[in-house]
Amino acid sequence: MLTTPGRFITFEGGEGVGKSTNIQAVARHLESQGISVVVTREPGGTPIAERIRNDLLKAHHEEPMSDMTELLLMFAARAQHVDAVIRPALERGDWVLCDRFTDSTIAYQGYGRGLSLDNIEQLKALAQGGIEPHLTLLLDAPVAIGMGRARARAQDLAEETDRIEAEAISFFEKVRQGFLALAERYPRFRVIDATAPLEQVTEQVLKVVADELEHKKQQAES
Amino acid sequence: MLTTPGRFITFEGGEGVGKSTNIQAVARHLESQGISVVVTREPGGTPIAERIRNDLLKAHHEEPMSDMTELLLMFAARAQHVDAVIRPALERGDWVLCDRFTDSTIAYQGYGRGLSLDNIEQLKALAQGGIEPHLTLLLDAPVAIGMGRARARAQDLAEETDRIEAEAISFFEKVRQGFLALAERYPRFRVIDATAPLEQVTEQVLKVVADELEHKKQQAES
Repeated sequence: MLTTPGRFITFEGGEGVGKSTNIQAVARHLESQGISVVVTREPGGTPIAERIRNDLLKAHHEEPMSDMTELLLMFAARAQHVDAVIRPALERGDWVLCDRFTDSTIAYQGYGRGLSLDNIEQLKALAQGGIEPHLTLLLDAPVAIGMGRARARAQDLAEETDRIEAEAISFFEKVRQGFLALAERYPRFRVIDATAPLEQVTEQVLKVVADELEHKKQQAES
Repeated sequence: MLTTPGRFITFEGGEGVGKSTNIQAVARHLESQGISVVVTREPGGTPIAERIRNDLLKAHHEEPMSDMTELLLMFAARAQHVDAVIRPALERGDWVLCDRFTDSTIAYQGYGRGLSLDNIEQLKALAQGGIEPHLTLLLDAPVAIGMGRARARAQDLAEETDRIEAEAISFFEKVRQGFLALAERYPRFRVIDATAPLEQVTEQVLKVVADELEHKKQQAES
């Protein structure tokens, strides 16, 4: 049985790039190797964090939520998720596969909405308590492709792009550029071309994970 | 009509020191002078912040809430309260009377529970966006007196102090010392002896507020 310490792998990218499908494929692959896997998501992942997630979504109906409130709630959920789920799993030696993490906050709230990247970095340091992903798979696709898939999935087949959708496209374009900027900065990133057919994307994803597994085996043996 | 800009006055202190009664007295006094007053409280003060307050209290039942989650939620509620209630009121020229504010977080979570004062200061800077109380009235009383009053109010007349109550006393003693340390550090503090009979305490409180009013009038005239 593999006795490597736990690994923390995050999956990032815009809408419609296939994160959840690929996370399931990775989980099955790792479990077939005898590895204990925890599949989780953000925001959420614990009862308290899921309740905060509901606040983040619902609260918009009664009064406008301030940007800083949103950011603090996001990181409150993350602190709980790290303390109650991610850190204990990694200490047990499990592999944690997480659908979105702080990189999404940086890409969506920071690059997309223009919230201060310095503020996000400060909150990240407070909430994560030193926990960082070992590996981040960025499933990347041009916005039009991702949105087209997300729209098809929602069975919304409107053909024309109205003003609000056009705004949305420029927003999601900033988000994509944010993810790509993060991928340039941090060596833990692997960028996967998500425009390919799903089985090819999954093949690439599993190859990256197999490399990580090999790397850990070599570490354990040395 | 008085055209001074708004003033932000906070009321701090342990349990049973008479904060709410005295806030009401100050509000009546200011309103009798033709001043618009907003009376509010923390944590809470807006629909979103009150919902976060509920999370802070309720969430303890399903899983332990991490210290950092608690702190981030506290400041998420505060950021919303500042942005939606306190700052707009001060910009209108109202006087804001607030039952507890960041000093309570520093005294209870910092001095009382031992959470990092540096972390609290960082979050304070993020959540308050430059808004600080102009004046803070600390209603101070030895812990035994405040707790005695709070207990009498709760009609809990147990005569003996058990182990848990004894722990609570040492906790509240740390909180009181935290408040007094803050009062030494920040000139905006006025320490009111809350051991006196209520009408004498209120008299002292109103004198401090009258000084503030006089100070603002002189500022407006100069």
